[in-house]
Amino acid sequence: MLDRFRTAAADRRAAGLRRTLWSRGPDFDGLLDLASNDYLGLARDPRLVEAAVAATRRWGTGSTGSRLVTGTTSLHTELERALADFCQAPGALVFSSGYLANLAAVATLGRGAVVISDAGNHASIVDACRLSRARVVVTPHKDLPAMEKALANRHEEHAVLVTDAVFSVDGDMADISAMSALAVRHGALLIVDEAHSLGVVGQQGQGTVHSSGLFRESHIVRTITLSKSLGSQGGAVLGAPEVIETLIDTGRSFIFDTGLAPGPVAAALTAVDILRNQPDLPGFARARASELAATARELGLETNHPAGAVVPVVLGAPEAALGAAATCAAHGVRVGCFRPPSVPDGRSCLRLTARANLSSDDLAVIRHALTAVAES
Amino acid sequence: MLDRFRTAAADRRAAGLRRTLWSRGPDFDGLLDLASNDYLGLARDPRLVEAAVAATRRWGTGSTGSRLVTGTTSLHTELERALADFCQAPGALVFSSGYLANLAAVATLGRGAVVISDAGNHASIVDACRLSRARVVVTPHKDLPAMEKALANRHEEHAVLVTDAVFSVDGDMADISAMSALAVRHGALLIVDEAHSLGVVGQQGQGTVHSSGLFRESHIVRTITLSKSLGSQGGAVLGAPEVIETLIDTGRSFIFDTGLAPGPVAAALTAVDILRNQPDLPGFARARASELAATARELGLETNHPAGAVVPVVLGAPEAALGAAATCAAHGVRVGCFRPPSVPDGRSCLRLTARANLSSDDLAVIRHALTAVAES
Ligand SMILES: Cc1ncc(COP(=O)(O)O)c(C=O)c1O
Ligand SMILES: Cc1ncc(COP(=O)(O)O)c(C=O)c1O
Repeated sequence: MLDRFRTAAADRRAAGLRRTLWSRGPDFDGLLDLASNDYLGLARDPRLVEAAVAATRRWGTGSTGSRLVTGTTSLHTELERALADFCQAPGALVFSSGYLANLAAVATLGRGAVVISDAGNHASIVDACRLSRARVVVTPHKDLPAMEKALANRHEEHAVLVTDAVFSVDGDMADISAMSALAVRHGALLIVDEAHSLGVVGQQGQGTVHSSGLFRESHIVRTITLSKSLGSQGGAVLGAPEVIETLIDTGRSFIFDTGLAPGPVAAALTAVDILRNQPDLPGFARARASELAATARELGLETNHPAGAVVPVVLGAPEAALGAAATCAAHGVRVGCFRPPSVPDGRSCLRLTARANLSSDDLAVIRHALTAVAES
Repeated sequence: MLDRFRTAAADRRAAGLRRTLWSRGPDFDGLLDLASNDYLGLARDPRLVEAAVAATRRWGTGSTGSRLVTGTTSLHTELERALADFCQAPGALVFSSGYLANLAAVATLGRGAVVISDAGNHASIVDACRLSRARVVVTPHKDLPAMEKALANRHEEHAVLVTDAVFSVDGDMADISAMSALAVRHGALLIVDEAHSLGVVGQQGQGTVHSSGLFRESHIVRTITLSKSLGSQGGAVLGAPEVIETLIDTGRSFIFDTGLAPGPVAAALTAVDILRNQPDLPGFARARASELAATARELGLETNHPAGAVVPVVLGAPEAALGAAATCAAHGVRVGCFRPPSVPDGRSCLRLTARANLSSDDLAVIRHALTAVAES
């Protein structure tokens, strides 16, 4: 029965696409972390830790049930208010992951509509499109005319446009203002995944919809994760009361999933508080990202102009990316290594992530490592 | 743009299908908890709490990345070993939720096969079937001849049978031995969701596959949650090395999701340890469930013979179920209330859940509440 899996694994091995789970220690095995999504360095911040500790002591280690039964504590409600307030959204609904937040938002709101999805969107959005059972049009990356055409030529009454705000591997930004205008013109809903923009993009890190001044628009729904710049775990959907109510009543990955555990809820709540009180954190993360990209470019490596904290270094072949990641590790730096199916064929890359608290010593170490990559 | 959601909400309201999120306090607002999935009463156990506290202090509040990048700590590896060991499975892979574990198992292993799914299966399995892009045959609840027919008449080379072990609302058990034999006879894989059987069914709570003596069968894949009897959050897939490797390489909801936070990992690890050292806990939970069902039956209410800890009380109409839940609350007992789409039309019910640590005083309170339900 397992033969077909063995055969497929051998094929993946031959193509350089086998993956190994390595497990790390608390200090990233002495390496400099340039791989995590902990953009603000909050995941080990003592304030988050102590908030999670206190909540776990008070509430226990699990929420004990789905959000509609026993899994909503007053802490969940408090986090929903804080997220809505910080992002200036009418309402928020917390999920146990960003993945499940995307599934609920896109699958539930897309039902019966045409769903138009950027080719670069995150896997959770792609899965959500499938679950919506809607007709799905995948448009080339950031191709506004293609989106407009799909909107104009649709036979469905309803339409949903969906995009990552900052794309998870390329690190570039969607044109949210233009997409919002398109959506209005064609009576469509716009869903924006702020996973990599929350805490990084905008004055205080409220993300792209906010920084585009569009937070009052009721046709825009935002999804976020609590697992990246907020240093915790979980996700949320931000939107109009009608949207939140629809998800509470009919969102399958909301209704049929256990509520987020109290510890992560409290950690995320504290992270939002820190963002309010340290408004310079997002700017630090962006500045470090620009410096990383400038270094890579200077060394002749293919990179981007980062919109947030994500800086890819494109190598091409899977083996080249693996080799470059090993070179970085040998120089004391842990980087992400992305190969198909996480990236398109021929676009295997390193994924460097900036952190607000990278020091100039750290940046010197990274320059060293990237120099070795460029020279090999 | 939001009109269609307003109209749909009005329709749901008219049908008695609107839902309200109520938030609870740490002590369940003084009510007796007969609604959570905390079957062993571990979610507030000081041993789990202190383990989560220590892990959060050591590792931080988030795992910081996907499992293949920075989200695998040595704590994750330890939990995977402990789960595999306890359930006597060759290997285990931890997810951030049981929902995402099911999506990965069924969607990844079902690809290119026919997927045969019991009509009573959990929403996460139904979504996973859709994501597999396989042909899906939904067979009537526990209808072995229908499963056999679908296996025998298939045109696909490969087949996957999938079932809940203990069904989440009806609380009845699948015939795992018969299904396993069917799977062997027809060269199929069998995926068993042990969400409501782990910690409850079997000598020490290792679940139905184990108690059926089938844990050595490489054609059986098990999924579990850490969020119910283990009192934490998260999920896992248990199976042969070929299965685990396939999920690591190609499981979308594994690859593209942030690893479970360290606190919940440590809490689940401690729960497994407790199950090892207190082998009478699962039996207590089952005994309390039998007593609850006996009480309900005695009072003339429609219930089940519980295989695990789940005891439904079927009322029929959504309004009747809501009324009965309110009656229970007025008598000091918090119960679950399930209406469509969580249950089929006409099968709205209360869902009572037994806990290993219910006292005889608790049982007297419950009898009182159910008496009021029966008389109203
Ligand atoms: C763009 C994007 N959306 C959603 C997610 C899913 O969030 P989570 O990891 O919290 O499930 C991720 C990453 O994991 C992501 O990169
Ligand atoms: C049978 C079954 N499988 C899977 C799940 C999902 O598990 P989790 O809540 O950990 O995501 C649940 C309940 O939530 C369930 O009842």
